Formats: sequence, structure tokens, C-alpha cells
Amino acid sequence: MAILVVGSVAFDSIETPAGRVENCLGGAATFFSLAASYFTPVRVIAVVGEDFTSEHESVMTKRGVDTTGLERANGKSFHWSGSYMENLNEAKTLNTELNVFGDFSPKIPASYADSEYLFLANIDPVLQENVRSQMSNVRMVCGDTMNYWITGHTDKLARVLKGLDALLINDTEAKMLAKNNNLVGAARAILAMGPKTLIVKHGEYGATAFFSDRSFGKGIEHVTLPFRAPALPLSEVVDPTGAGDSFAGGFFGYLASQPELTPLVFKTAMFYGGVMGSFAVERFGTERLQSLDRKEIDLRFALFRGLSHLE
Amino acid sequence: MAILVVGSVAFDSIETPAGRVENCLGGAATFFSLAASYFTPVRVIAVVGEDFTSEHESVMTKRGVDTTGLERANGKSFHWSGSYMENLNEAKTLNTELNVFGDFSPKIPASYADSEYLFLANIDPVLQENVRSQMSNVRMVCGDTMNYWITGHTDKLARVLKGLDALLINDTEAKMLAKNNNLVGAARAILAMGPKTLIVKHGEYGATAFFSDRSFGKGIEHVTLPFRAPALPLSEVVDPTGAGDSFAGGFFGYLASQPELTPLVFKTAMFYGGVMGSFAVERFGTERLQSLDRKEIDLRFALFRGLSHLE
Repeated sequence: MAILVVGSVAFDSIETPAGRVENCLGGAATFFSLAASYFTPVRVIAVVGEDFTSEHESVMTKRGVDTTGLERANGKSFHWSGSYMENLNEAKTLNTELNVFGDFSPKIPASYADSEYLFLANIDPVLQENVRSQMSNVRMVCGDTMNYWITGHTDKLARVLKGLDALLINDTEAKMLAKNNNLVGAARAILAMGPKTLIVKHGEYGATAFFSDRSFGKGIEHVTLPFRAPALPLSEVVDPTGAGDSFAGGFFGYLASQPELTPLVFKTAMFYGGVMGSFAVERFGTERLQSLDRKEIDLRFALFRGLSHLE
Repeated sequence: MAILVVGSVAFDSIETPAGRVENCLGGAATFFSLAASYFTPVRVIAVVGEDFTSEHESVMTKRGVDTTGLERANGKSFHWSGSYMENLNEAKTLNTELNVFGDFSPKIPASYADSEYLFLANIDPVLQENVRSQMSNVRMVCGDTMNYWITGHTDKLARVLKGLDALLINDTEAKMLAKNNNLVGAARAILAMGPKTLIVKHGEYGATAFFSDRSFGKGIEHVTLPFRAPALPLSEVVDPTGAGDSFAGGFFGYLASQPELTPLVFKTAMFYGGVMGSFAVERFGTERLQSLDRKEIDLRFALFRGLSHLE
């Protein structure tokens, strides 16, 4: 089933202990689309500037991503500069140039209207809500956000949270959103804000899903215990940029490829999220996500199983 | 099979967001002994002062711990004061009074000589090495250490590391010991220092074992992939003191109860380590570890499995 993703397509300049790159293709919607493309059809809505060439676009179209919703605007694309020199777990933003992204007003192409899954990547919650309200018939909506929206735009974000099947955020964001330093307490508070399920990403320690009694459809037993999927211990993280979006792409891509949302499907999807995140950080930008195949992905899935299972 | 543990028996004064206690029974050897006692016979070597009453001793003896090696010295017992008010993941030491522990010289009772498993809790590496050399016929030796010995007594610690089947330390200590900020790189470096296997404890994120080609005996296939055991997400951590020692007790206690060291036995032991750590933090001091039964422990083991397994 097709996933519609709305978010940023950007150029990134990044420095890490492994080196530096200038203006490589990035953005949450890009990482998400590429990661999800190995599991299910993906349709993207984003805005790019005149510096975005057909070669850039082909990175997505080669992976079968539908770019009908990629709007071209006059000016330059969104540009982000960041450094991981001090801490590989947290980017230090050096510069953000919104450029054409500053006036982004998502338009949904008619050919996207039958998308059954919707991913709201980290953008202004007003835009997330706008797209959400136009896609009221989807089977499942997942979303991401960040500290900027959590602290400065709480009311707008609250409306988005009410419409989410799953929210994917990191530890710091979860504790900030809930104003609670205990992860379990924070998870309970966030589930009370609307999301049926919360996934908290722990970087190199994996991710934990917290379920509510609304996580699964009728007839499926309620899951009370959280679920923790591991991350792969890596001897070198070349570039952490996009790891979280790649996790989301692997997770939601796998979910959308399955006929039914069961607890086991959800948990398996979290493993695929970790798998795609582990690939993403092996190279700068989207490089590693461009040239995978399903066999490599499933071999790594088996590694994740071996890493965590008593068998 | 009996485990001999050498380490501290102490009194702790602790403040956490859940409250405060004065002079409650603590010390690495105490937490380790109680946790391991649910799996296998335990024999303790430690020194205590005149303030250590028969009531304190009965905490251990009631759990079947052999206290023949508990030496009584003139003076006060080791006393530690710590606070977790700012950070539940890391104790802030307010005061350390070594007292009788300052002159600790471990003596091995004749009745302990046939112990097949040896745990060297966090004490001066000179004393660890001393005990190790007197117990040269044991089947397996595990050990702990801390930043104080890593940074200030590197050479002495190096000799201990050469004799260890498994070293159990936390992330910060592993990176400090290896002088490497990447966990996989640090693990490789530490395994090259001597320990056959390294377990890195991640607090609320569980623990990871890194294996070498010497981790298991001949005829057992070499394990190249690390193994990650989860921790239980808890809505309240009353007192983190002793969590790591309780992990070690559950881990090594289970290992010592098994006829053979296989990869599956090792991994299962890590789960039991997490289980005992999760109990320890539910109450102040050793309270929770005093009154468990194996059924409760195995129910929680099943929770850990459900938390992490695709089934």
C-alpha cells in the first residue's frame, strides 16, 4: 500500500569525525522515502528550489519514489549545516537556511488521493495538520516532530498529536513534551495527548514502543508491555544525519507492506526501522540508502534478531 | 556450583527523588551475593566493623550466603553517602569513609577453597589480583572495576584484566579504559587487554556483551555478533544503588548454576542480570533482593523476553 510522506527535501553540509561533505542531498522526506521504498510504494510532497536538478530527483525516482508532489519554487532549496565533531549522538546546527521551504504550502496531487498511509515528517505542525485533514480516509498516520515545535508551538502540535496512530520522537523530545524525566511516565503522558502508540528512539541503544489500549484494532489483544528493538553496535558511524528518518521509513514502509496491523507486525516493523537506520549512518547523506537490495536488508534483519534473541 | 565473591560490605546513606535512607546495608559484595543467591550457593569475603550486627549478617545468611569469610575488624564499617537528586543514572558521591575497608586484606577460608566461580567486585585491583592468584583452579572469573582504578591505577588493573573470563563495566568506564569513544572500538581494545568477554552495562538501556574467539571453550562455535539484553522500563526507580552489582549477581549466579558455558547460557544469564537489576532499584538498598522467590524472578524473565523478542 502506498505511503504519502510530507516533509523536507534539502541540501546538507555536514562535518563528522569521518570527514565532511557540502550540499549533499538530505531532508527528512528524502531519507524516509528512500528507506521506505524497499518495502512499499512511496509518494512524496515537498518543495525544492532551482538548485535541485533532475539528477537529484533521479535519486528518488530510481528507487521508484513518486515525485509528482515535488513542487519547484523560485529560489534555493532548504539548506542545513551541522556538525557532529563533539558528539555523534547529537547534531550541532551551524546554519539553517529555509529558503523556498519557508513558504512551503503542501499541495496534494490528485494521483496521491488514494494513499492509505500518511507520514508527517518533522515540519510546522500547522502544515502537518493541513495535510492530515485533507487525507482523512487513510488507514494509518505516523508523525515526527522536534524540540522547536514542542517548546514553541505546543498548541499547534497538540492538534496534530490527536490525529496520530504513532508518534516517533527521541528520548529528549519525549521527556520535554511530557515534562517528565521518567521515560515510562513521559510515555503515559504522551499517549494521553492522543497518539495511539509512541515510539521513543534511543539512538545507539535502539527504540522502545509504548502501546495504549487503542494501538491495535478490535479483536486484537491489548499489549501492555513496551517493546524494545535494538540498534546495531557499529564500529564507525560515518554520518548520523537522517538515521531517525530512515528508522521511520523502514518502520512505516514495512507496516504499509503488511495486510494487517498486529502486535507482531508492529514489532517486526521496529526491527526494520533499526535496520534502515543502521544502513543510513554507514555513509554520508543518502548514499547507502540508494543502493541496497531487499536481500541485504533481510540479512541485516537476521543480525538484529541474533543480537537480541535467546535462540 | 559455588561462587566466591570478594568485595565491599558497607552502609549507605542515599537520597533519591523517592526519599532518603541513612546507614542501610549496601556494598557491592552484598548486592552481588543476594542477587546470585537465588541461583547458586554464594560465599562472601569482606571486612566489616563493630557496627555490623548479627541482624545485618542475617540478611545474607537468611538467603543462604556463606559468611565464613566475613572478617570483623575494630572500627566502623565502610560508609558511602550518595545522591541521585540530579541524575538517577549517575550517583553523586557526597562522602566516602573507608574505615575498616581501608586496611582490607582478603583472607580465603579453607572451606571456600573448592569454589569453582570467582567474582572480583569493585575493589583495589591489587586485592583482586591477590585473591585471583590464590584461586587458580576456578572455572570462571568475572570482575568489575570503576573509573578511580581505570584512571589512577592502570598498570595494576591491567594485570587483573589478563585473568578475567568476563569484565563487567558501564559505557563511560569502557570508553575511558579503552580511550575510545566508539563502543565497538572500545570493546575490541578491551578484549585485547585480556578479558575473554566484555559486558558493557547501559543502565536503563540494558547491557551488551562483546565476545572474543576465547569466549567459549573448544568445540563451541565462536560468536562474532554482540548480544544485547534489555532493561525493564520502570515508572519509578526508587534507588539505583547496587543495580550493577545485582546485574552481576543475577548474571554470574545463573551461569554458575548451569553445567556448561554455551552462547545461549551466556545470553540467558545476561537476561537474568537485567532481571535482578530491575528488582534491586524498586526499593532502597537491598530490601527488594531480600524477599524474592524464583517464581517472581522467572515471571520477570518472561517479561524481559516479551519486551525484546519477536514472538
